[in-house]
Amino acid sequence: MTNLFSNIPSDLPDEVVETLLKTNTLRIERIASHGHASAKDFWYDQHQHEWVLLLQGEAKLQFEDDTDLLSMKPGDFANIPAHRRHRVEWTTPAEPTIWLAILYAAETE
Amino acid sequence: MTNLFSNIPSDLPDEVVETLLKTNTLRIERIASHGHASAKDFWYDQHQHEWVLLLQGEAKLQFEDDTDLLSMKPGDFANIPAHRRHRVEWTTPAEPTIWLAILYAAETE
Repeated sequence: MTNLFSNIPSDLPDEVVETLLKTNTLRIERIASHGHASAKDFWYDQHQHEWVLLLQGEAKLQFEDDTDLLSMKPGDFANIPAHRRHRVEWTTPAEPTIWLAILYAAETE
Repeated sequence: MTNLFSNIPSDLPDEVVETLLKTNTLRIERIASHGHASAKDFWYDQHQHEWVLLLQGEAKLQFEDDTDLLSMKPGDFANIPAHRRHRVEWTTPAEPTIWLAILYAAETE
């Protein structure tokens, strides 16, 4: 794969995560889904920080520490500190939603 | 800024680089230009690796070690190892070209 909009699986029952690059402190992923949402009581609770960019589609993220949802459209990005619990509340049914996720280690120096 | 397609300077005589996130091993940048190319004999020679994604516009990259140009359109990405000398041969005059660049440290562990 050399283009983030290509080779999207036609059958997307759940999130499909592909690692594009990995080092000891960094992982770059493409995440694709179609109308997918996290399970009602599921929270991501990650030990790495995550910088995430929505490339296609539309989504609403929910954070456990915030009553407002974060609506994201193409070009929108957000930085999610490690252990800030969050979930995908909604993605558009109109088309696949594609994200670029940069997972990176906490400061060590 | 929370959207990579917003707040593009209307006057882009050269590349405009904005740092979106910085840690001790990682820097995420938005790079915007319009019809810009590197000077004829200029080569980027970076001590960090660079993973670069073209988001809007169109570009051709030249590598010193390759006779072929790398044509990039939206969604295309490339990983440029540290010290692989490269330059921007061309960007489209039709619209601003926008990149996301992830500069990351060489493996240290």
